[in-house]
This record gives sequence, structure tokens and C-alpha cells, in this order.
Amino acid sequence: MERKEISQAVIGRLPRYYRYLGELMEGGVERISSNDLSKRMRVTASQIRQDLNNFGGFGQQGYGYNVKYLYTEIGKILGLDKNHNIIIIGVGNLGQALANYAAFESRGFILKGLFDVNPRLEGVAVRGVPIRMMDELKDFVINNDIEIAALTIPKSKAIEVAAMLVENGVKAIWNFAHTDLSLPEDVIVENVHLSESLMKLSYNVTRYREEHEEE
Amino acid sequence: MERKEISQAVIGRLPRYYRYLGELMEGGVERISSNDLSKRMRVTASQIRQDLNNFGGFGQQGYGYNVKYLYTEIGKILGLDKNHNIIIIGVGNLGQALANYAAFESRGFILKGLFDVNPRLEGVAVRGVPIRMMDELKDFVINNDIEIAALTIPKSKAIEVAAMLVENGVKAIWNFAHTDLSLPEDVIVENVHLSESLMKLSYNVTRYREEHEEE
Repeated sequence: MERKEISQAVIGRLPRYYRYLGELMEGGVERISSNDLSKRMRVTASQIRQDLNNFGGFGQQGYGYNVKYLYTEIGKILGLDKNHNIIIIGVGNLGQALANYAAFESRGFILKGLFDVNPRLEGVAVRGVPIRMMDELKDFVINNDIEIAALTIPKSKAIEVAAMLVENGVKAIWNFAHTDLSLPEDVIVENVHLSESLMKLSYNVTRYREEHEEE
Repeated sequence: MERKEISQAVIGRLPRYYRYLGELMEGGVERISSNDLSKRMRVTASQIRQDLNNFGGFGQQGYGYNVKYLYTEIGKILGLDKNHNIIIIGVGNLGQALANYAAFESRGFILKGLFDVNPRLEGVAVRGVPIRMMDELKDFVINNDIEIAALTIPKSKAIEVAAMLVENGVKAIWNFAHTDLSLPEDVIVENVHLSESLMKLSYNVTRYREEHEEE
């Protein structure tokens, strides 16, 4: 299929469209105008029309968007109709939260393995997947066609582990470690830096407090 | 203190500067040039100079930046030298991960309370803070000067709980629920939508796979 290049800004907004359309479907809504979608999502209707026009005429004048069709098509664009083998490295609270994340498999992410350094966790299963020790990681990655690894390990280990994973075929890292990973340019890294999110919150709350004390 | 308005784009980059400067300090580095910092952070030296100039002359020609001073000043700008009372609502794996987050208190976030609906968790302590039931939440917020609430609860409950919190004085929501919260404009909301992060990863991995299959 020919597909024109879509800007990362549009791509960045697609998951939110997908989420809203999913909620509409759950609520039994079959079609929606860009104006109604605009009010719900608090973005302009013209932005919605522009964004969705990237994928060809999902909308019809006077009819609006077919919710289920649009949901399915955006899902395809996001690759959610494909399977991706994923492992989680670090099975502390955060790793367990990810492993138990219900939407994982409905979105095509197949949880293949869990790894930790704590020997007391060896063999313990989370959603039917046994926790393995780190010395098995390299062979496991080589033999199981692992595309994505989620890293919820301390930053002191993350860089070294990420490099080993990539050398052995992992294409993408979902990085929760509090560090940037230095990896080859074609490796996909999606960072979730909770500490940075918390600092933004801190900045905004502090500014809010100062402004209100001045009043 | 007079402080000029700083753009949200700069604010968004400050936590990353803070993290790098912290790592430099840990490594015993006392000063660094914008060129060296640029190489480490993979941003241009001119961007660094521009960003840091917002806060007045931390750098000196031919000397570079004093790492500790800059770290401390950025920390102040981010409000990390102030205390913020925080509660966590939803003490599943993700809530526990946040509660156990070691950097919390060193950054001025004081964990005041934990709340859940599961009666088996009542009274169980995480880092010395007992888990309370949701029917105590409202009074607790009113009586304990709670500024920030982290929400790690299902989306079906999140909107209602967030509205109640804000009515009773909470100023900021750290939102992990898979939904947008409709709150008054002056409420600070910092969203961490893990599912959207995962979908961006899915898009990029899928595109990577298509490109390499075409070769």
C-alpha cells in the first residue's frame, strides 16, 4: 500500500483519537461530526479534519465520521492489528503493573517473558508468564523473536542491558529507567520519565502557589 | 524576586538538565562547558546557552557552568526546594511503584496518604503510610492541606474522584487513568498515558518493520 509520510505531530495525536473513538464505541455511538468530536476532545474541528484527512476521506459531508470504521483504520495505522513480542525487564511494582496491563494483548502486544535479578522471584508467574533470571535473557531474546523490551530497572544497569538487547535483535525499548539510553540511531526508544513528569508538576504547582500568595 | 516569564518549552526541558547535572555531580564533576554538556545531552550548545540564559548568568566565558550551582538553581526554579503534600489514590502495582519511588521526598514531595477501595489493604503500610479507604478521602484532603493527588484508578472512577478532590482544595492531579479529566482551567493536570506511549511505540515499530521488509 502506498502511504504518504505523516508528520510525527499527527502521529503523536492519533492515540488520543483512538482512545476517544474507543470510548464512543463503548457508549454505542455509531457516527460523530467533527464538531461534536471537537467539543469532546477540546481541539478545533479544523484540526480534527486536517489530521484525519491524512488518511483519506473517512468523513462524509453531512454525515460525519463512522466511529467504528475510523477506530479500526487508526488502529491499523498505529500497527495495533499486528502482533509485537514484548518482554519486561525488572519485575518490581512498575514491571508488574505493566505485565498486568489489561489492554496489552488486545493491542497486539504479546507478553513473552519477564526478567529480574531477584532469585526469590524465579519461576513466579504473572499472567501465566514465569519470571526468569537475567542470565537467561540473552538466549531468550535470540530465540524468541523479541521486538520490544520494557526496561523498569535502575539506571545503573539500564544502559548496559539496553545495549545487549539491541545487539541481539531487539528493535525498540520502552524505557522507564531514569536515564537516556545511548543507542544506534535506528533503535526506537520511547521514554517514560516519571521523575520529569513530577518535576513539571512541581514547577506548575509552585508557580500557582506564588501567584495566589501575591493576590 | 522578579522573575521573567519562561516559556513552557524551556520549562519542559529543565527536568532533563536537572537530571544530567545531578549525574555530573554524582560523578564528581564540578564544572562543565556548554559544548561538553551539549555532547552528553545531544542538544546543540546554542540551545543550552539560550535555555540557561533565561535564568541569568550561570555560565562564565572560558570557565563553563558551575555544576552544583546550576543544579541547585534549576531545582529552585522547579520548586524542588519547596514541600508539596501528595496523596496517591489507587494502591495497585502502579500506585505502590509511585509510593516506593525513592526520589519522591528528596524532591520535596511529602507522601501524606494512600487510598484504595480494597478492604483487605486497609491499614497496610507502604513506607510507613497506612492505606486508607475511599470513604475517608474527602475529610483527609480537607484536613491535611493536600496539594497534589496521583490517580492510578480505573477511568470509570477517575473523573468523579478528581472533581471531588478539586472541590476540596487539591490544586494538581498527576493522572495515570486512561482518560482526560474535565476540570476547571486553573487546575494543573499532568497526564501520564501509558497506553498512548505504547501506541506510539507500536506505530514506530510497525513502520520500521515495513521499511525493512521492503528492502
